Amino acid sequence: MTPTIGVFDSGFGGLTVLRALLCRLPHTRFAFLGDTARLPYGSKSRRTIARYAVQSAQFLVREQGAQFLVIACNTASALALDAIQQAVPVPVLGVIEPGAQAARAASATGDVLVIATDATVQSGAYSAACHSQGLRALEKACPLLVPLVEEGWTAHPITEQVVRVYLDELAAEADARSLHPDTLVLGCTHYPLLRPLIERIAPAGMAVIDSAESTAEAAARLFNGRAAQPDAKDVPEDAEVRCFATDSVEKFERLGSRFLGRAVGRVELIDLGG
Amino acid sequence: MTPTIGVFDSGFGGLTVLRALLCRLPHTRFAFLGDTARLPYGSKSRRTIARYAVQSAQFLVREQGAQFLVIACNTASALALDAIQQAVPVPVLGVIEPGAQAARAASATGDVLVIATDATVQSGAYSAACHSQGLRALEKACPLLVPLVEEGWTAHPITEQVVRVYLDELAAEADARSLHPDTLVLGCTHYPLLRPLIERIAPAGMAVIDSAESTAEAAARLFNGRAAQPDAKDVPEDAEVRCFATDSVEKFERLGSRFLGRAVGRVELIDLGG
Repeated sequence: MTPTIGVFDSGFGGLTVLRALLCRLPHTRFAFLGDTARLPYGSKSRRTIARYAVQSAQFLVREQGAQFLVIACNTASALALDAIQQAVPVPVLGVIEPGAQAARAASATGDVLVIATDATVQSGAYSAACHSQGLRALEKACPLLVPLVEEGWTAHPITEQVVRVYLDELAAEADARSLHPDTLVLGCTHYPLLRPLIERIAPAGMAVIDSAESTAEAAARLFNGRAAQPDAKDVPEDAEVRCFATDSVEKFERLGSRFLGRAVGRVELIDLGG
Repeated sequence: MTPTIGVFDSGFGGLTVLRALLCRLPHTRFAFLGDTARLPYGSKSRRTIARYAVQSAQFLVREQGAQFLVIACNTASALALDAIQQAVPVPVLGVIEPGAQAARAASATGDVLVIATDATVQSGAYSAACHSQGLRALEKACPLLVPLVEEGWTAHPITEQVVRVYLDELAAEADARSLHPDTLVLGCTHYPLLRPLIERIAPAGMAVIDSAESTAEAAARLFNGRAAQPDAKDVPEDAEVRCFATDSVEKFERLGSRFLGRAVGRVELIDLGG
């Protein structure tokens, strides 16, 4: 029987992680759940987020037979990874640790920048993960980037200006703290859609770490026992993917293909309760 | 005893409505509730929104003694006004009807533009309210404006460009439908902070209707039995305002003063249950 990997997000941004997984593990079955009825997780308490995330993880393991879980959500990875690992009897991988590990491999100076949502920055999870890798991290919340991506303005001149404002503010703050960053971590599952624009704008020599790619790489290594190189151009059209959401199926279907790089097909509505 | 008006929003954008009320009814006591734990309402079903909004309205009436309620939330006004009116024994006013009435008073051509959030546009509530006033309405979702306001970029060149893009798209669509709009309704409680910028950019002769102002005007008329003219420069510092939120008190306190035009003071955390 084809093994199944469950991928979980509070919304559908985590489809960028699924995309990176598909490119590396095309002969795997995937079940993706977006807990869209209860997003955003960022404004909720740790206990509430853990309860929602555990319910979602249990659905993927019990109902969809997932033998491996990827938490493709920064907030849930930051606040609920332990709770999920205790609640399900399969390996569970979050997005933050692989991003920090990739930053460590890329950075010569040991100073890294992290851009993410307000909730992720406030959790301090990337700083902690980078610190445990011996890195110093400077984090910045970039709340305009998710709505710009969802508006479809991924190559728009306005988006370029917004990214410049954020990167300039980060550079000024790094200067003020005498940091010499050479690595920029994209700490939000929406940001891979801005990667070409960010790589064009970022200072010369700055490595850009896409935590979706880093997570897929780590998952492929854990799941396969070996690294799998992606065939980056092709998102396999025939790989088996089932998508579930707890609400707002229409928006998921409409916008999801931009994140997944192929059609998401019909999204199945499920009810996880309160 | 000083009469109390309850003001309800899913977040804190409705503080712009409270601000407009304070300028007209400075000798009234106000209780404001932001149901921040359960926002955004826009992605939820009508039944769920009605349940949340009724709980919030009952808190303001039963616990805070409100004798009059203003629903300073477009989504709740669109989807739950009837349910709230049935659930509480006091008069209840939403933001949509007063906006449509002000548009009718302002428009000579009978064609009006409405900008709002995606959820409000999808509800069709402004189109329906305008239609019942004999107006033709063209609505547009502007999802970048709320995050731009929350970022504090209310006079930023980037925000000006974004507004230009949206207004240009609206003008093109109005042309395509042979409409001749002369009135623009700001159909979101965040947008009054962009009013100076929007009035500067909008075509000459376009009336800009601020539904927060229209709603406060209607409330003052209903509550007082007569119209009250605002002393627009002064938001009374000494008027009694108690603010409540169901989560994220910190963000409310940090950003709220921009919307209210004075300090919001301490925001009290309450629990309305699941």
